[in-house]
Amino acid sequence: MNMADYQLTKDVMHVGEMASGAKLTVPVYRFKGKSNAQSVYIQANMHGAEVQGNAVIYQLLEQLRDLKILGDITLVPYANPVGCNHKNGEYTLGRFDPITGVNWNRMYHNNPELISPIVEQYLDAPASDIEAVFKQALLDDITEQLDHNIFGLTTGQRIAYQLQKLAHQADIVLDLHTGPISSKHLYCPEYAKESASFFNIEHTLLIPNEFDGALDEATFCPWWSLTEAFADKGRKLLLDKESFTVELGSQEQIDLDVALVDAKSILTYLQHKGVIAGGDFVPDVMTRYACYLADYKAFYSPMGGMVDYLAAFGKPLPAGEPLARILRMDNYGDGDALHYISLDKEVIPILHFASASVNQGTELYKVFSDFFEL
Amino acid sequence: MNMADYQLTKDVMHVGEMASGAKLTVPVYRFKGKSNAQSVYIQANMHGAEVQGNAVIYQLLEQLRDLKILGDITLVPYANPVGCNHKNGEYTLGRFDPITGVNWNRMYHNNPELISPIVEQYLDAPASDIEAVFKQALLDDITEQLDHNIFGLTTGQRIAYQLQKLAHQADIVLDLHTGPISSKHLYCPEYAKESASFFNIEHTLLIPNEFDGALDEATFCPWWSLTEAFADKGRKLLLDKESFTVELGSQEQIDLDVALVDAKSILTYLQHKGVIAGGDFVPDVMTRYACYLADYKAFYSPMGGMVDYLAAFGKPLPAGEPLARILRMDNYGDGDALHYISLDKEVIPILHFASASVNQGTELYKVFSDFFEL
Amino acid sequence: MNMADYQLTKDVMHVGEMASGAKLTVPVYRFKGKSNAQSVYIQANMHGAEVQGNAVIYQLLEQLRDLKILGDITLVPYANPVGCNHKNGEYTLGRFDPITGVNWNRMYHNNPELISPIVEQYLDAPASDIEAVFKQALLDDITEQLDHNIFGLTTGQRIAYQLQKLAHQADIVLDLHTGPISSKHLYCPEYAKESASFFNIEHTLLIPNEFDGALDEATFCPWWSLTEAFADKGRKLLLDKESFTVELGSQEQIDLDVALVDAKSILTYLQHKGVIAGGDFVPDVMTRYACYLADYKAFYSPMGGMVDYLAAFGKPLPAGEPLARILRMDNYGDGDALHYISLDKEVIPILHFASASVNQGTELYKVFSDFFEL
Amino acid sequence: MNMADYQLTKDVMHVGEMASGAKLTVPVYRFKGKSNAQSVYIQANMHGAEVQGNAVIYQLLEQLRDLKILGDITLVPYANPVGCNHKNGEYTLGRFDPITGVNWNRMYHNNPELISPIVEQYLDAPASDIEAVFKQALLDDITEQLDHNIFGLTTGQRIAYQLQKLAHQADIVLDLHTGPISSKHLYCPEYAKESASFFNIEHTLLIPNEFDGALDEATFCPWWSLTEAFADKGRKLLLDKESFTVELGSQEQIDLDVALVDAKSILTYLQHKGVIAGGDFVPDVMTRYACYLADYKAFYSPMGGMVDYLAAFGKPLPAGEPLARILRMDNYGDGDALHYISLDKEVIPILHFASASVNQGTELYKVFSDFFEL
Repeated sequence: MNMADYQLTKDVMHVGEMASGAKLTVPVYRFKGKSNAQSVYIQANMHGAEVQGNAVIYQLLEQLRDLKILGDITLVPYANPVGCNHKNGEYTLGRFDPITGVNWNRMYHNNPELISPIVEQYLDAPASDIEAVFKQALLDDITEQLDHNIFGLTTGQRIAYQLQKLAHQADIVLDLHTGPISSKHLYCPEYAKESASFFNIEHTLLIPNEFDGALDEATFCPWWSLTEAFADKGRKLLLDKESFTVELGSQEQIDLDVALVDAKSILTYLQHKGVIAGGDFVPDVMTRYACYLADYKAFYSPMGGMVDYLAAFGKPLPAGEPLARILRMDNYGDGDALHYISLDKEVIPILHFASASVNQGTELYKVFSDFFEL
Repeated sequence: MNMADYQLTKDVMHVGEMASGAKLTVPVYRFKGKSNAQSVYIQANMHGAEVQGNAVIYQLLEQLRDLKILGDITLVPYANPVGCNHKNGEYTLGRFDPITGVNWNRMYHNNPELISPIVEQYLDAPASDIEAVFKQALLDDITEQLDHNIFGLTTGQRIAYQLQKLAHQADIVLDLHTGPISSKHLYCPEYAKESASFFNIEHTLLIPNEFDGALDEATFCPWWSLTEAFADKGRKLLLDKESFTVELGSQEQIDLDVALVDAKSILTYLQHKGVIAGGDFVPDVMTRYACYLADYKAFYSPMGGMVDYLAAFGKPLPAGEPLARILRMDNYGDGDALHYISLDKEVIPILHFASASVNQGTELYKVFSDFFEL
Repeated sequence: MNMADYQLTKDVMHVGEMASGAKLTVPVYRFKGKSNAQSVYIQANMHGAEVQGNAVIYQLLEQLRDLKILGDITLVPYANPVGCNHKNGEYTLGRFDPITGVNWNRMYHNNPELISPIVEQYLDAPASDIEAVFKQALLDDITEQLDHNIFGLTTGQRIAYQLQKLAHQADIVLDLHTGPISSKHLYCPEYAKESASFFNIEHTLLIPNEFDGALDEATFCPWWSLTEAFADKGRKLLLDKESFTVELGSQEQIDLDVALVDAKSILTYLQHKGVIAGGDFVPDVMTRYACYLADYKAFYSPMGGMVDYLAAFGKPLPAGEPLARILRMDNYGDGDALHYISLDKEVIPILHFASASVNQGTELYKVFSDFFEL
Repeated sequence: MNMADYQLTKDVMHVGEMASGAKLTVPVYRFKGKSNAQSVYIQANMHGAEVQGNAVIYQLLEQLRDLKILGDITLVPYANPVGCNHKNGEYTLGRFDPITGVNWNRMYHNNPELISPIVEQYLDAPASDIEAVFKQALLDDITEQLDHNIFGLTTGQRIAYQLQKLAHQADIVLDLHTGPISSKHLYCPEYAKESASFFNIEHTLLIPNEFDGALDEATFCPWWSLTEAFADKGRKLLLDKESFTVELGSQEQIDLDVALVDAKSILTYLQHKGVIAGGDFVPDVMTRYACYLADYKAFYSPMGGMVDYLAAFGKPLPAGEPLARILRMDNYGDGDALHYISLDKEVIPILHFASASVNQGTELYKVFSDFFEL
């Protein structure tokens, strides 16, 4: 393949090193847009077991060959070279640094102190100036964190901050994840909920302006906070910055055919934002459900046991209908060997735990409660 | 439930203790048969993640309420209380002692020295005497191992030997396992292949008289060897002892509906052996494939990458047809990002690895080669 | 031993259950004090590998046989039955839930909303009434969390909250931990620094009134906040509540002789507080160093490699002196195979990482910076 | 450093690749000897946590700068790039493939069928011809295994076979390991016991001609078997091939000063064999104990608990003297909280388990029984 055909460049970013000295590297693919349309950053596989995003990036690269690329697009598969290769038994250790237990997607950086100097100095400046200045401030700040820290950075911060440095250069950020065993769903900032309907994803979580360490938050919260700070001073700013975490389904799976479907869903959104042209992507007609993050509930197992998961994903489950039945063979004959688990309110099951074996307190299901149509 | 209704008794067997002093226990369910029909030992979940056998034992217990139980039946779910509860990330550490790496199903005991004294002393004795004497010798030997060892036993040996002591008391042994992501299949001693057709399982592995540490081998190899040793002396013995490892499908899953189907498959075999009566179990009509253990091949991944598994289980796959395609996003643009993997001979894929992420050399598929109809 | 001899009672607390149904239990030892002196709660081994506190509790129980016990004392070894028994390879998984990665000592509960109602209602009440009412509020709140939660609790919360319920009943809380490879040190609330000198521990960390999920914080922060809230209203309250995390040295080790030394150190403090009498414990004369928590610095490895730890614990290390040298054999011959690591300010090394093998970004040392004599 | 100064060359050997495509590499250092003296192969760190051998190779390289190198010397640190970098919690997963549980040092190759054709064809040939032909046969065989295997190799085999290919080219093989918490000791083939006295190591295990998968066995067993096969035909061959596993002490530690001591011990042996000259290495005077491998006993813990290891390494421990005492706080008050563990025969403790926390059946100590002076 001639990469020049469609302006694709590839770099290898060095993000750390292991005990043996082995370099930790991440491939970075970049398209230079043909106009000054919005720019996009897409990464996949920050959690080790959540591999399907790599296949989506593969299909995006294949599709982009035949499309007109107007804005810069950066694509980063295998974003976390530690997590990606970390096996415990047959499975990939998914969610956290094996040494510290810290979730790989809770290590991004946020610095609320960047905002007030900008507001004070640029209160009446043109929006484009404010945007340029604040973007540079974000980039300078993350660079400072990376390069000037006497006591150093954790392994995960070093990886996350370098990815974040790429992400801060874009207007649109898509972080491709999966659940354990899961339906597709979308994390979307509350202010961007109109955009959710351009993805072919039936379930959307609306998230508030609260930084909890994730990449989507690390890239939209600063802009949201900046807008609010200007609003407090009476200045209404419109800064078109959107970040999403796209949950592609279940972990530990690669399916290139499904990946093509999801690549087209993403391209539908990107076409809507004017980043690409030359395709004819139309969002699917479907009922789209949403709930606020505070109503996205984890249901923890009330008992240890082995679980036969019953509730189908994505459809409202009436109150009292079983989520699961839990087998407890140790109780056979002199206790209850089979327990049906239900909730006393209607919910939409979105994902469940990856294994049949659960302890008391293991997160069994995550569900939309108090959901509504988007 | 009134357990007395169908003569079920329950014991809790103590098989070890953890660092905190927590007792490791295993529940043991027993039916006393109404006649001197053959006796049966069934266990499940020796590998931590292979939980579906517990659900099959649940359904067996439910079914047996309405059947006539002629031979003694012992059922042991949760056979390995260490493996059963051992989590690494979300998954259950499946196959080996987390401290030593030794496969939990390679720790059973075999003592070839028991055979020649029996042959010498009982060359012309009635078969029933030989059977009783050798059974007692096996029980005495395993008891000796458990109780009189100055340097002690490993954690896994202590568990395995206690289970083996129960198993040696039975004529028929069923060890319920699963593969990682797998079709159903049966490990069957070569001499018992007629019996394989009474299970509703399409694929049978015929295994030789070679002890490699597993429970089925530990319980049939001694009898096979005894028979051969008598044959060498010109005495033809018919000792009706059968042991099977029943692979129920994929690990990390409980499905009580499928478990009922598999319970009935086992009852079909037990009815054939005269252990139960009062049901009308008839084996399903199906094409049953078999191959010899030496022709059951593990195919190791020729490269690292992320795997889209393509080959369907259970059907002959022509030479050259792809088993899988492996994604290598690091090669996109300047190498081959997608590799199709095939074999140059016809095989039947039986199971594949549990994760999409594989290293070079990870066991990708296990396949029947040189298979035949049973 | 006749437990009645010294009023010791023992209970077994049920804190959860595993997939097999195995009960998670914690032993609880209690002395009823002979007077209304302050009461004490001591626990050990919340982190799985930090076992030495169990030996200290053993020696405390042995010592208490010959002492006069004035206040109630509750002692809980093996506080975390999941962590305690969780092996990965030869070592005990120390610090976090193997499924979620959450640090076992970051799951305690704090509810700042309990404070203002008390302040409003009891502004002029006697201190003893306020103490009683607030203690009951803390107990009611944690009980409510345990018993009335429709979506349930995590495995770790269920364990932590039950321990916290015991701890809230005491005036003094000691949580026994260890570092990885570590000197002894003490986490002490800033207001209680006088008490630090009654322990035979050379290094003290002074911690602020900020709840970060640990047991010591969960038990002293509410009282500190209450005092501050009253102070804001002009009422000066003296509530003698103290909580410490006692770091006993290195993990993965039991040494009963050293445990006796540390038990006597704790008894020295308890005698000072009037909880026990009949001994003649005098704190050792030693230079005690302290620093504020904000000055307790983790130093992350600037490179991957294999570490020869050089700096001695507990003594000021001059600026520029090496903490460690890092071997990088992959660089031998064409790079630097040996790197000396130092800081450009004076620090006191307190602990280092448990393994020679580190990634770039692994926490290499923790050090007191800006330390002072207590 | 000018590598040319002392004829050192460095290569990077590619031994596999991970899921992300990351290459697994091993550095290989080689000296070309100035004469046709015996050649040497030294590797370290096949087990991930056993890192001290890398430091010994560092010190060997430093020492060799000032010595006369007569035979070819190949040195391979970081021999296992998977194990080397594999963390579970803070520790390095030591001994086995995390996916399969197979011990990394049980994957080498042995092919007994190579021997009889050589014996038949070269019965009367000069010893040097036999040596050359058999060496080539070993190399061809391992190359065949690596390159021509339709179903592939496991990850560990691919690494092991490539190392073995280097090792088969040498006359002397040293595989540098450590125990968990351990004294220094040496695995030495029975026929080479004279050589053991040239190492400064007090304890030697004499191992028989039985292949169990380790590198030392993989490189000496074929030659031993060949010699025996010739002896059976009446031809007495003297083939000076020696392989040792050198156990350097405890895992998870780098100590460059101790490494220098051990490098000099190895150089003492190499000087004795004529591989180097120009130094004045003299073996230390010490009592050297030995025992046969069959008398090297693992003692498994008779109970779960937390262990205070008492027995000193390396000295005969009289029968009845305690190896350890085991704390069981769950039994305090109503059982025995402290158990002393001893053996009823004299032994020399060599190593003990790496953690205080043990299950019933965990390998507590390894000891020489029926030992003797070398």
